[in-house]
Amino acid sequence: MADVSPFGICQHGDVRRHRRQHVSEHAVAVAAQRLEEGQVGLVATHQVAGGLDHAAQEGCRFHRRHLRWIRIEAHAQVRAVAGGGTPPLVHERHRAILGGHLAGIVHRTPGLRGSPLCRHTDAVSPGRERCYARHVRIDVVLLPALGNEPFAGVCVVVDALRATSTIATLIARGVAEVVVTATVDEARALKAERLPAHLLCGEEGGLPPEGFDYGNSPAEFSQLDLRDRRVILTTSNGTRALARAADASLVFTGSLLNRTTAAHVALGEALRRGLDVALLCAGTDYGRAFSLEDTAVCGAVIERMVAGHEGPLTELALTDSAMAAYRLWRSYTSPRLLLGESTHGQALARLGLAADLDFCAQLDVYPVAPRLHRGADGSLVIRAT
Amino acid sequence: MADVSPFGICQHGDVRRHRRQHVSEHAVAVAAQRLEEGQVGLVATHQVAGGLDHAAQEGCRFHRRHLRWIRIEAHAQVRAVAGGGTPPLVHERHRAILGGHLAGIVHRTPGLRGSPLCRHTDAVSPGRERCYARHVRIDVVLLPALGNEPFAGVCVVVDALRATSTIATLIARGVAEVVVTATVDEARALKAERLPAHLLCGEEGGLPPEGFDYGNSPAEFSQLDLRDRRVILTTSNGTRALARAADASLVFTGSLLNRTTAAHVALGEALRRGLDVALLCAGTDYGRAFSLEDTAVCGAVIERMVAGHEGPLTELALTDSAMAAYRLWRSYTSPRLLLGESTHGQALARLGLAADLDFCAQLDVYPVAPRLHRGADGSLVIRAT
Repeated sequence: MADVSPFGICQHGDVRRHRRQHVSEHAVAVAAQRLEEGQVGLVATHQVAGGLDHAAQEGCRFHRRHLRWIRIEAHAQVRAVAGGGTPPLVHERHRAILGGHLAGIVHRTPGLRGSPLCRHTDAVSPGRERCYARHVRIDVVLLPALGNEPFAGVCVVVDALRATSTIATLIARGVAEVVVTATVDEARALKAERLPAHLLCGEEGGLPPEGFDYGNSPAEFSQLDLRDRRVILTTSNGTRALARAADASLVFTGSLLNRTTAAHVALGEALRRGLDVALLCAGTDYGRAFSLEDTAVCGAVIERMVAGHEGPLTELALTDSAMAAYRLWRSYTSPRLLLGESTHGQALARLGLAADLDFCAQLDVYPVAPRLHRGADGSLVIRAT
Repeated sequence: MADVSPFGICQHGDVRRHRRQHVSEHAVAVAAQRLEEGQVGLVATHQVAGGLDHAAQEGCRFHRRHLRWIRIEAHAQVRAVAGGGTPPLVHERHRAILGGHLAGIVHRTPGLRGSPLCRHTDAVSPGRERCYARHVRIDVVLLPALGNEPFAGVCVVVDALRATSTIATLIARGVAEVVVTATVDEARALKAERLPAHLLCGEEGGLPPEGFDYGNSPAEFSQLDLRDRRVILTTSNGTRALARAADASLVFTGSLLNRTTAAHVALGEALRRGLDVALLCAGTDYGRAFSLEDTAVCGAVIERMVAGHEGPLTELALTDSAMAAYRLWRSYTSPRLLLGESTHGQALARLGLAADLDFCAQLDVYPVAPRLHRGADGSLVIRAT
């Protein structure tokens, strides 16, 4: 029991408080995030718990050391509870076994869609409840092609140059809805056949296709009065990533322009609904190649999730890729250097679009969290909420 | 002409020298790295050149800003030259067109194997030669599954915890050859049927399988006298990555234990043969998941490539993922913090293998660059050279 402690995450000044609160009490918290549906009612897979030891080292970076294996056993008690969402959440309780002894009770909450998720944990010494902890796993998916399972939980799609920066700008300027398409032809057909009043916007090789009302320039959109207008937007990488994420429980778009609001809304919904968070990089070269700026901007969003989280920081657990994205973001002394250093940023500058680099490098100018909705016909529609 | 300048890379103290040498002369260098074979003799694809402007900002980080499009046209002149390798290198000269004017001559050198590579460039003002530059593209492949084309050029495989740390230790302790297998059964069969005198080493779930002579612990191997012994080594992630890389022109293994020697030998061979460099992360979860420590250790190798390179730093061009790996590595104040923060490092600590974490965190204790050879029967064999 004494060696088991919660997954740790920390920010400046908060480490010692949480160390005292959680670790010194040897509280047990079991992070059992991926129980399979078929294993309920049987002895389930091995799961892990994490520790906060040594968290004060190296300027309060994140640490998850001294973990121990926890075995999760099924438990008879299953109850339905009224959750924040629809349909109501279902709670199941399972035993967590450490070294042959009962280490805690795991509350398992299937997600609203997709694979079941488990994150509510009661930690108990045998026979007695000790503390209550709740975990949100924060992951960064570096390319849409990675991760062959459908996303569950809350997803934040990032195509910093320029699709999700454009979307933040459009929504902030009052656009009622943005219908996203993967190809220029699809956008033209949509305008001609079904949405004649929509503005036709987007890019092909970075520039506006012939006959389009506007390109994909957030700097240009920021100068327009777009109140209650509706927009069709076609982009290459951004649309692919949005389509990949569309079956998650909730999908938001993130960029430097709206990183704090996107971070707070996405994490707040994840905590409220008991879901994980996945930040999805659009990537370059049609989503096949790693993108420096998308990864670092995911780190910028994570930074605000951590800084803005009012509960115990032990509620957040970063994966390896989330940690790398956070550290990558923190390695830049200014967002302009990040965008100027990236291959895609340089390509935009070559096309004469350097003004968009400067525009997209602004932090938190738009307090919006644009949300993706999947239409009945499969269309991808983004609105303010 | 004035806006075109070479791809830049810099280290502390060297920026101003190279800025003066290259940029202030407005020298043209065309980085045309991936001309397709079928395009020779025709007008070829668009290619890019890079710039070193603003390189002095932000503590001498890498910068590649203010790029311009260069069009490469085929040129009649093709000559065979005696290269460092066998078969001899073939040189082809092509015109580089910028804004309708001749901007330079591109020397195209097909690689020894795989897709043709182009990196030798003569930069000229129309009719007059100005400077000579040569580029090595340094890339990091974050997972073996990424990049669906076969690797050309020089590859450095990194499975820091623990396969490539073990391999560096074995070779440094005098082992004559390490035969790598993907499965425990394959290793047992090899020992029983063909290599009875070899030591049987490796892991399954981190621990030595039954009947094996040793596990996969570099800390343990460092205590043994292994002069002229031969070893069969089975690992999960490491073997998969080595098999993925095996068809590259040259394959080395890298770890913190031998990062400087691996960096210098790999980059030296790439420069000598006119090849690119790809650092390949083994990843976790059978090569499907991003690994914090493998990516950062690739950055540690790149750091030594840059620091140890005696030619102009404009000879090196980092991709987005190489830049991210380098910055990730530089974000850690000590290698122990990196390995302790990684998910896989924590899993090893849970298994009681924390001594291996401390051992693998040592920098440059073994001056070896283990090299992978593909046997006639397809087997993967690693030797000192």
